[in-house]
Amino acid sequence: MAAPEWNWFIEYSSPHQAHMHAVEKYIYQGSTPYQQVQIVDTYTFGRCLILDGKIQSSAFDEYIYHEALVHPPMIIHPDPRRVLVIGGGEGAVTRELAKYPSVEKIVMVDIDEQVVKLCREYLPTWHQGSFDDDRLEVIFADAREFLENCQTSFDVIISDLTEPVGNGPSYLLFTREFYSILNERLDKGGVLSLQAGSLSMALLDVHPPIRNTLDSCFEIVRSYQAFIPCFDTIWGFILASHGKDPLSVTRSKVDTEIESLKGKLKFYDGETHQGVFALPRNVKEAMQRDRRIIEDGRPLTVY
Amino acid sequence: MAAPEWNWFIEYSSPHQAHMHAVEKYIYQGSTPYQQVQIVDTYTFGRCLILDGKIQSSAFDEYIYHEALVHPPMIIHPDPRRVLVIGGGEGAVTRELAKYPSVEKIVMVDIDEQVVKLCREYLPTWHQGSFDDDRLEVIFADAREFLENCQTSFDVIISDLTEPVGNGPSYLLFTREFYSILNERLDKGGVLSLQAGSLSMALLDVHPPIRNTLDSCFEIVRSYQAFIPCFDTIWGFILASHGKDPLSVTRSKVDTEIESLKGKLKFYDGETHQGVFALPRNVKEAMQRDRRIIEDGRPLTVY
Amino acid sequence: MAAPEWNWFIEYSSPHQAHMHAVEKYIYQGSTPYQQVQIVDTYTFGRCLILDGKIQSSAFDEYIYHEALVHPPMIIHPDPRRVLVIGGGEGAVTRELAKYPSVEKIVMVDIDEQVVKLCREYLPTWHQGSFDDDRLEVIFADAREFLENCQTSFDVIISDLTEPVGNGPSYLLFTREFYSILNERLDKGGVLSLQAGSLSMALLDVHPPIRNTLDSCFEIVRSYQAFIPCFDTIWGFILASHGKDPLSVTRSKVDTEIESLKGKLKFYDGETHQGVFALPRNVKEAMQRDRRIIEDGRPLTVY
Amino acid sequence: MAAPEWNWFIEYSSPHQAHMHAVEKYIYQGSTPYQQVQIVDTYTFGRCLILDGKIQSSAFDEYIYHEALVHPPMIIHPDPRRVLVIGGGEGAVTRELAKYPSVEKIVMVDIDEQVVKLCREYLPTWHQGSFDDDRLEVIFADAREFLENCQTSFDVIISDLTEPVGNGPSYLLFTREFYSILNERLDKGGVLSLQAGSLSMALLDVHPPIRNTLDSCFEIVRSYQAFIPCFDTIWGFILASHGKDPLSVTRSKVDTEIESLKGKLKFYDGETHQGVFALPRNVKEAMQRDRRIIEDGRPLTVY
Repeated sequence: MAAPEWNWFIEYSSPHQAHMHAVEKYIYQGSTPYQQVQIVDTYTFGRCLILDGKIQSSAFDEYIYHEALVHPPMIIHPDPRRVLVIGGGEGAVTRELAKYPSVEKIVMVDIDEQVVKLCREYLPTWHQGSFDDDRLEVIFADAREFLENCQTSFDVIISDLTEPVGNGPSYLLFTREFYSILNERLDKGGVLSLQAGSLSMALLDVHPPIRNTLDSCFEIVRSYQAFIPCFDTIWGFILASHGKDPLSVTRSKVDTEIESLKGKLKFYDGETHQGVFALPRNVKEAMQRDRRIIEDGRPLTVY
Repeated sequence: MAAPEWNWFIEYSSPHQAHMHAVEKYIYQGSTPYQQVQIVDTYTFGRCLILDGKIQSSAFDEYIYHEALVHPPMIIHPDPRRVLVIGGGEGAVTRELAKYPSVEKIVMVDIDEQVVKLCREYLPTWHQGSFDDDRLEVIFADAREFLENCQTSFDVIISDLTEPVGNGPSYLLFTREFYSILNERLDKGGVLSLQAGSLSMALLDVHPPIRNTLDSCFEIVRSYQAFIPCFDTIWGFILASHGKDPLSVTRSKVDTEIESLKGKLKFYDGETHQGVFALPRNVKEAMQRDRRIIEDGRPLTVY
Repeated sequence: MAAPEWNWFIEYSSPHQAHMHAVEKYIYQGSTPYQQVQIVDTYTFGRCLILDGKIQSSAFDEYIYHEALVHPPMIIHPDPRRVLVIGGGEGAVTRELAKYPSVEKIVMVDIDEQVVKLCREYLPTWHQGSFDDDRLEVIFADAREFLENCQTSFDVIISDLTEPVGNGPSYLLFTREFYSILNERLDKGGVLSLQAGSLSMALLDVHPPIRNTLDSCFEIVRSYQAFIPCFDTIWGFILASHGKDPLSVTRSKVDTEIESLKGKLKFYDGETHQGVFALPRNVKEAMQRDRRIIEDGRPLTVY
Repeated sequence: MAAPEWNWFIEYSSPHQAHMHAVEKYIYQGSTPYQQVQIVDTYTFGRCLILDGKIQSSAFDEYIYHEALVHPPMIIHPDPRRVLVIGGGEGAVTRELAKYPSVEKIVMVDIDEQVVKLCREYLPTWHQGSFDDDRLEVIFADAREFLENCQTSFDVIISDLTEPVGNGPSYLLFTREFYSILNERLDKGGVLSLQAGSLSMALLDVHPPIRNTLDSCFEIVRSYQAFIPCFDTIWGFILASHGKDPLSVTRSKVDTEIESLKGKLKFYDGETHQGVFALPRNVKEAMQRDRRIIEDGRPLTVY
C-alpha cells in the first residue's frame, strides 16, 4: 500500500466532526490584524483560501458560491446600476458583477487590506482582473462604520462576509441593527443578498437566526441553497427586498437575462434558479421552529 | 483545552479526502459472507450503519434518503400495487412503502440475511416494525439471479443497493444487462427509482454512467438530488420509466397525494419535489460530457 | 491504493501531538464510578486497556512495563515476603510477584472493582490466573484511606497507578503526604517502586516533580526507564528506599536472582538492569532544573 | 472548546499506526532529483526536516540523534584524524566532529546538493556554521560510486543515511557489498558508526538485518540506542570495528575524553554511554532470531 498523504488540513465543523483535506502545497500562511490567513493547494479542490481555519472558497468550486450569491439579486432587479459589496475580498463577486452592462458603480468595503492584496496575488482565477474595473471603488474600512456615515444608496447590496466566529471581524455585521442600516442604504426597489451559513440539518444553527433577523427588517426574505463541494455541505443564502420576489421569476426570464450578460455562467440558469429556492420540508420546518433574533447585545457566534 | 474525542470513524471518499466522525459507542462489528458490517453511535448523527467502511444511513437523517428514494416513483404512479425492493436491508424503504394504502404486495430481495437481522435488532427506528407488515415478503437471494427467474411484474421497483465497490456484493446490479432485466419486470406503466451515487462536482464519477446506462433502456430518465448530512455530500437518485415524467407533476399534485398517505413525511412535499428535480447547470453539463455505459464486461467500481 | 483503516483510536499527548492506532475490533466500552474504560483490539499492539482515553497497557508489550515495575525492587530486597500493590488492576503485577518463592502475602488495593472484573474477563494473558493465587488478597478501596488505617507493614510496595489526570481517581496518590504514608508502611529495609510518567524530553512535566517529592521522604531515590512501544515514548519509573541502591547491584547478581524465580522473564536481566538505571545527560540535567514538589494542596495533573 | 489545530503532518510508521504533529508554519516544500523535502515548524518540536514523508530531525532533539551517532566511535578511537561522513546533509554531524581537536580532515559525501543547500539556509541551529570549517570537504556524489573509486582511508566513518525506502536514494547503501567497501576504506584501527532504524519491538524489521549484515564484515558489532522524541520511538545505532569495543570503555574514560572537547555535549556522557549500549533482553533475543542478511540483489526497504 502506498503511504497516505503527509499533510492534512483538518477543518472541524464541531468537536465531533471534521473534514480532512490532503494538501499538496502550502502557498501562504500569515496573520493580518483581523484574521489568520492560509492559502493552500489541495489535491481535490486545488487552491483554497482559508481564514481563521475555515475554507472560504476553492479554485474548484468558487464559481458555485459566487454565482449563487450574485446573480439572484442582480437578475431580479430590473436595472441594477449601483452595487455595494461588503467583504468579497477574493474579487470574485466583483468579477460576476462586471458581467452586467447596466452596472455603473461598484463599491466594495472590506476591512482587511492584506487579505485583498493576497487574493490579488495568489487567486488570479478568482478575480480575473476585476480589481482593475473602472467602475470599482475599493474601500478598506469596517463596513458598519462606513455605512453609518455613507450618504449614497444602492440598487443591490451583496454581503459576502466570513462567518461570525467568536473573535472574528464580522460578528457585528449579522445583527438587526446592522440590517436596519443596510435597509436604509438600499434604494426603494433595492435587493440584498447574503451568504448565510450552512443549510444542512446537522449545522442549522446559523442560518435560521440570520433569516429571522432579516424578517424583522425586510418585506420579502427568501432562503436559498447551493451545494459547495469544498464546504462538504449545502450552503445557505438569503435574498431580501421590499416587493421583489425570486419565487415569481420564471425559468425563462432567468435564462433570457443571463444570455444578455457579458460572460458565461457555469452554475446558474433558469432551472438552477427554480431548484435553489425550493427548500425541502425538513429545512423549512426546522427554520420555523427557530425564533432567535440577532442583536448587537446578543450576537451570534459559530464553532 | 478539553481533550478531543478518542474514537473516530474515518471515511475516505478518495485518497485525498476524508470525513472524521467522533464515535460515542461501538455497537456491533462483524463480517457476513458478503460484507463487513459496523453499527456505531456517533455524536453528530446518532446510530449509523456502516458497510465495507461506508456509512449507509444514520438515525439522524435516514428519512431524507429513504423518502427521496421511495416517494417520487410512488407518487408518480397512479396506482402502485406491487412493489419490488432490491436491497433495502434497513427496513426503511418498506416503512415508507407501507404508508401507501394502494400497495398490496412488497417483495424485498436482499442478498445478506445477516445484515437484515442486525438491522432488525439494532435499527428499530429505521424499520419501525415494517418487517412484520403482512404485505411484505422478504427473499434472501442475489437480486440478479432472482429476477432472471422471476415471472411476476411490478408497478414500482426501488433499488437501494450499496455502491459497487471492488469486491462488494452489488457490482453486477449496476449494468445495462441488469437494467434490461428490471425493464422486463416492470409493468408497462411501471416506475423505477434507484440511489445512484453522489451528485457533488467533486465526486461525479458514479452517477453519470449509471444514468447513461439507464438511458439505453428507458424512455424517461431523470436525475434528482438530496443533501444527506451524514454523507457530507449531495446525493443522486434516478427515476426511470416509460412515459411517466416527474417534471410534469405539479407541486400541488404532490402535496395532495402525500396528504392521503397513512403516516406523515418529514422531507418530501411539493416544493421539495420541485427542488430535487431541478439540477444546477454545472451538474447537467458535466453529465452530458460523460458518455460511459456500464456493462457486465465493463463494470463500475468506486473508491 | 487500498482504503485506509476505518476506525482509529487517537490518543493526544498534548493539543499538538497525537498517536493514531488503527482498531480492528472494539471489545468493551463503558464507565465505572471512577473512570471511562475501553478495551480494544488494535492491529499493531493487539488488545489494549484504555482508561480515560489513555492506553494503560497492551498485549504486545505489557510485559516490558510490568517487569520494569516489579523486578528492580524485588531483586534488590534480600527477602521480600509481604508485598503491597497499589492499583495494578490488570493482574500483571501480581503475576510477576507470584514468581518469587519468598513472597508469603500480596495485598492489592485498587479503587475500581469493575475495572478489575473487566481485566479478569478480557485480559487473560495479563493476569494468567494470578488473581487465584492463595497469597493474594484484593481489597477494593481508596488506597489512601486504606493505608491511613492499615497497621501492617510491607517489604515491598509497588505503585501502579493511572496518571493523575484532572478528575481521575489517582491525583491524591502522588503527593508528599501520600508518600509519607507509604514510607511509614514500609519495613525498615523496604523498597518502593512506582510508575512515574514519561521520560521523554518532550513530556517531562510529570516525572521530575514525582521524583522531587519522593526525595523529600526517602534516602535513596533512583529514576529508571523503559521504552514501551504502545506508549510511543520512553517511560519513567522510580525506585525509593532507605539504604538499598540499585546502582550498586551487579549484572551477575541480577541474573542469578532471576534464575531462581519460578517463571521466565522476557524483558529484565542483568544487562537490562544496567541500562535502565543509566540515564542520559539531558534527562538528568532537566530533572535537576525542576524544583516542584507535589502536595495535597498543590496536586499535579497531566494533559 | 477551542478549535483544534488546523494543519497536521501525519507520519505513518505502518498502515495501522501514525503520529500527528500540529504544524505552526510550513517553511519549505519541494522536490530534488532524489527526494521530496519539507521543512516545517511544529508546535512540539520546532523546526523539522522531512524527507520523503519521514521526519529526519528536529530543532528540539537533533542533538540526541547526532551526539549518539558521532561520539561513541570518536571517543573509542584513540586519535581520529580523518573522518568520512556519508549523508549528514544537515551539517550536524560535522558540527559534532568539529569539536575534536585531533580531526584534520572531514570528507562528507552527500548525493543531494539541494538538500544541503536548504539545510544551510533553513537549519542554522543544526550546522552552526560547520560547513565553513576549513577541515571539511563536501562532495556531492553517490556514496557508493565515490567510495569504489576512493583511494584514501579513514579513521572513522559515520553513515547518516535516510532509511532505505522503496525508491529512495539510499537503498544500495545498506548492503553487504557496500559494507565491504566501507571496511576497505577504514584504517586498520578504524571505527564505523551508523544510524540503523528503530529498536522498538514494534518496528524491529530494519535494525536486525543491518546488524547481521555488518556482522559478516566486521569483528566487533554493537547495537546501541537512544530515545528520539520527534521519532516517537527508541532509535538504533550500530558501532562496528576490528578490535575496538565500546563495552570495554569505562564511564570515567568517556567523561574524561568529553571534557577535552571544544564545545559542550548535551546528551552524551559516561553514564549515557553505559546506558545506550545495555540492551533489554527482549530486544537482544529478537535480534538473535532474525537471520536476514542484506545484499545488493536482496535489498531492504521500509514502509
